[in-house]
Amino acid sequence: MKKGGGAGYEARERTAPKAESLVLEPRLERIEEVVRKRTRSLTVVLDRLEDSFNMAAVLRTCEAMGLQEVHVIEHPEAKFDPHSKVTQGCDKWLDVRIHRDFAACREYLHSRGFEIQVSAMREGAASLFELKFDRRLAFVFGNERHGVSDEVLSGADGVFWIPMRGFSQSLNVSVAVAATVTRAIAWRLERASEDGDLTPEERAELTERFQLLSVKQRKRIYRGQRTP
Amino acid sequence: MKKGGGAGYEARERTAPKAESLVLEPRLERIEEVVRKRTRSLTVVLDRLEDSFNMAAVLRTCEAMGLQEVHVIEHPEAKFDPHSKVTQGCDKWLDVRIHRDFAACREYLHSRGFEIQVSAMREGAASLFELKFDRRLAFVFGNERHGVSDEVLSGADGVFWIPMRGFSQSLNVSVAVAATVTRAIAWRLERASEDGDLTPEERAELTERFQLLSVKQRKRIYRGQRTP
Repeated sequence: MKKGGGAGYEARERTAPKAESLVLEPRLERIEEVVRKRTRSLTVVLDRLEDSFNMAAVLRTCEAMGLQEVHVIEHPEAKFDPHSKVTQGCDKWLDVRIHRDFAACREYLHSRGFEIQVSAMREGAASLFELKFDRRLAFVFGNERHGVSDEVLSGADGVFWIPMRGFSQSLNVSVAVAATVTRAIAWRLERASEDGDLTPEERAELTERFQLLSVKQRKRIYRGQRTP
Repeated sequence: MKKGGGAGYEARERTAPKAESLVLEPRLERIEEVVRKRTRSLTVVLDRLEDSFNMAAVLRTCEAMGLQEVHVIEHPEAKFDPHSKVTQGCDKWLDVRIHRDFAACREYLHSRGFEIQVSAMREGAASLFELKFDRRLAFVFGNERHGVSDEVLSGADGVFWIPMRGFSQSLNVSVAVAATVTRAIAWRLERASEDGDLTPEERAELTERFQLLSVKQRKRIYRGQRTP
């Protein structure tokens, strides 16, 4: 089995066509457009969510609105397991990073220059509608039943809330993320071009990765269509 | 049994205290604030939804954001039955009107001067971020799997979409409602006062109704706390 394995690998490597040549033209254009609009300077942090539908709805919203990164602080008793019926496979286009706790997540985001804003109803919380989105921002959303922890509240750089006007004093977490992310994207669209903010290097890296993912997808589809 | 029934009724009517006198002061202030911010000139129409969590999340978002009315075109095979775990009882503060079909809903809304905007990805659809919210607007959102029907598309006054920037080409319906309603409210907040737009008569009517609902709620709580 071992004999010839190396050569075979090398041969495959030499003859393997580039992913780009295997992807259909409309798909290449779609990838180019998505990459051009992508942002790494807005991100969402999910703090110990429990519900797989909520996890999934958040991922789909973030992907659809052009965010590349989502951060997850896993619930000690509920694995991060977004429901695939709701994600519709969108998670493969995202960088979802799992952190063991908020301290680790905070250190990582701060090292990359992110300001951490926590969603909570607190005295002095800033209105979402008054926030400026002109910098690296990470928005933290807490557990469905318990909200964000004291550790998160005290370790964040700011607290914001979505101004509510009714008797209901809270929103479903996927609804809160949707309100926040669409607000941020709309704010930026009004003040800058339609483009995202990846560097040329980040664009090249992501384009290649998306092309590879598209090839894998096509292969899967072809397998599914093969006549037995 | 019949004897004295009329008199008893009259007696109860004479001695029944006004709801206002039975509601605690902080609650009265809360009711006044909610009524002051309430709007009847923005509404959401749900076109044959199937999922009770989605129905519930939409009601909670609308109530929390100050909408008084929600319209429902019921699915022929799925009763409108918002999940109470998600509504958290907020639906009692809303006017939820069920229509037998879109034609009936359209006629009702048009008779009250509403413009009907349907959420759908279509050539020529207006961007949510470019809509003006300075008039009576009803936003229609379609079924989770099939979207809005052709009947709705052809019978509406306009089509809009939430500009998406990723590979995902659709949003969960409760997410789409959240993005639309918070956008509309933020737009109005930037251009007008924090107040809603009820007439003095509508305010008085709603205040009284909310006070009555609060009394019923208090009675329920007292019953729950009674020592056996």
